Amino acid sequence: MPHMVIFYTANLERETNMSVLCRNLADTMLTITDEENKSVFPKGGTRVLAFPAPHFAIADGGAAGRAANTHLGAASGDPGDYAFVYLNVRMGKGRSSETHKKVGNALTAATQLHFEKIFNQRHIGITFQIDESPEIFNTINSNIHPLFSSPKS
Amino acid sequence: MPHMVIFYTANLERETNMSVLCRNLADTMLTITDEENKSVFPKGGTRVLAFPAPHFAIADGGAAGRAANTHLGAASGDPGDYAFVYLNVRMGKGRSSETHKKVGNALTAATQLHFEKIFNQRHIGITFQIDESPEIFNTINSNIHPLFSSPKS
Amino acid sequence: MPHMVIFYTANLERETNMSVLCRNLADTMLTITDEENKSVFPKGGTRVLAFPAPHFAIADGGAAGRAANTHLGAASGDPGDYAFVYLNVRMGKGRSSETHKKVGNALTAATQLHFEKIFNQRHIGITFQIDESPEIFNTINSNIHPLFSSPKS
Repeated sequence: MPHMVIFYTANLERETNMSVLCRNLADTMLTITDEENKSVFPKGGTRVLAFPAPHFAIADGGAAGRAANTHLGAASGDPGDYAFVYLNVRMGKGRSSETHKKVGNALTAATQLHFEKIFNQRHIGITFQIDESPEIFNTINSNIHPLFSSPKS
Repeated sequence: MPHMVIFYTANLERETNMSVLCRNLADTMLTITDEENKSVFPKGGTRVLAFPAPHFAIADGGAAGRAANTHLGAASGDPGDYAFVYLNVRMGKGRSSETHKKVGNALTAATQLHFEKIFNQRHIGITFQIDESPEIFNTINSNIHPLFSSPKS
Repeated sequence: MPHMVIFYTANLERETNMSVLCRNLADTMLTITDEENKSVFPKGGTRVLAFPAPHFAIADGGAAGRAANTHLGAASGDPGDYAFVYLNVRMGKGRSSETHKKVGNALTAATQLHFEKIFNQRHIGITFQIDESPEIFNTINSNIHPLFSSPKS
């Protein structure tokens, strides 16, 4: 914890670089501070993972979107299907709702920036959510965390 | 929200078309109405995503299944391993338990219909669950929703 | 239920056999007993699924890890990026916290054993968590369960 998981329709694979989105989101997470000006996310524990879904179905499958763009013709660049991106952050318990909002707004803004061009070119839905981690058992084994716990970092 | 996620063993990839299942499930979701005869799932917000797991282990790995089918021989068509499909709907809060049952029963029925032939041919487990969305922060950016919010649709 | 899901960075794909990990974890699950010496996990309902994330970002992307290993040179075998493995068990409700600990400790130990060599060779974070299943609707269709419910098994 924390970790961020992205589920997205695989039709986006050829339209955007999701590794770049993961990097941007991780970088954004690392800049967020709480009320006491401390980092919300520990550097060594910040991870973003993205999974393309090779199979999916959205709304009416694209019919309404294609109909809406008929006047644009082939030049519109609209691939004619729908895309969807679901982003979920699983945060440790006990953070304030102020912090939740700050995290949510910062990550939503970074996501919108990444998809700005695509959003203007095709039909796409982007949903971002934060869950409070409900785990009842937790273990961490990491040799990444110690890299950032020395006075140097 | 809502969205439906399917995790399944990748051995099913060559036995069934999961894109067809996604489409059937989305179509089923769009037909479900609540006590006031309103659609439970908004058209623009209905998404089904399916993810094959390239690595998996189930029960004893297939031994008991193969032993049970020994009398059938190679002609049984049973591939000899186990398959598993996990379907999860994450629904918005505040729906009645009647609605939950209606959604669950309709989507279970659509799933069973899809896997009927496979169910008679191999060993497979299918689990369907609904969770109430526990999110503490939520943003939606979509140009799909507006396609369906006009009087026309 | 129960089922175990593993999300991991795809850079591990060439360093370890995740199918072997899935098998080891399922075998471990099948050995765990509760206070009354009964199996915690039913054989037919024990499944482990692992999903590689082709896109990911962790911490600073590897810089601190590479800096820490500079003295080792190319011979260190360290690929220079970070890896991450997230393991989640979704258990049925109503188990004791003793059972949760037993399950968590056994599966953490099996996971650590699997990654022991890798842990000594590269920077990697491994997080294991148990959630109590929060579902509000549940159906199971399985022809695997009956294989193990006869007196024979």
